[in-house]
Amino acid sequence: MSIDPSAVIRPFHEAEFAWEEVPCQPYKETGDALFKAISRRVLFAEPALGCELRYFEMAPGGYSTLERHEHMHAVMILRGRGGCLLGDQVRRIKPFDLVLVPPWTWHQFRATEGETLGFLCMVNATRDRPQLPTEREFAALRSDPNISAFLE
Amino acid sequence: MSIDPSAVIRPFHEAEFAWEEVPCQPYKETGDALFKAISRRVLFAEPALGCELRYFEMAPGGYSTLERHEHMHAVMILRGRGGCLLGDQVRRIKPFDLVLVPPWTWHQFRATEGETLGFLCMVNATRDRPQLPTEREFAALRSDPNISAFLE
Repeated sequence: MSIDPSAVIRPFHEAEFAWEEVPCQPYKETGDALFKAISRRVLFAEPALGCELRYFEMAPGGYSTLERHEHMHAVMILRGRGGCLLGDQVRRIKPFDLVLVPPWTWHQFRATEGETLGFLCMVNATRDRPQLPTEREFAALRSDPNISAFLE
Repeated sequence: MSIDPSAVIRPFHEAEFAWEEVPCQPYKETGDALFKAISRRVLFAEPALGCELRYFEMAPGGYSTLERHEHMHAVMILRGRGGCLLGDQVRRIKPFDLVLVPPWTWHQFRATEGETLGFLCMVNATRDRPQLPTEREFAALRSDPNISAFLE
């Protein structure tokens, strides 16, 4: 049996916080500020796994899309501290904390602590498209002072 | 919407290298030395995810089972340096390196550097049972001096 090791081992380079042969996909920022300063790397997406492992990273002050969906997100924070919105909760997060995002739960990650925030996110390969909040839903979320402060 | 945050956020405690509410399952060691000084923690295993994320940790000198199977393992080293056997390759590994174990590939992780070695392992929830090497297969592996040195 002979396996090309370059195909199966992808070394991590700490200085750049990047993996060999794993492209960085910066989000294209739009005017509506649904997300900010966030990039995505797909670490594993082989069909036989049935799921994917992605790495998302936000520059200080950046944030992921505020969204909800049927499928679950299984998250592990990999670098930096920050905050997350999860349903009606705002929580602080730090490296290696685990976050399970249940179905149809509004969620957003934010690099609120002046540090780069990066997390792993495991998802089923077959999943529904995220929903964004309507104006009414967004207003309802912001009616909570904690959430309003988090979103600013 | 009200979510019990204790159900979805499991903080990490760095001093113990452990997660709240995540039990540590030490392997029961057998006389045949197929593995040594290794423990397992299931971080995510919700059926809707279609896959599971586990954390395996070896004390210095410990090692995982030498095995192969149809299903793939998607691994990220989380702590410590060590080595891994992957097919006919012996490779050094360090934190955040990615290792994809292809189907039917002999593999073993070893804490060879005097450090605790821990890794994440993502697998499909539906998977076949691992095969252990027969005496003949084990001898064939050890006929390679690199592999023989690794296994000692």
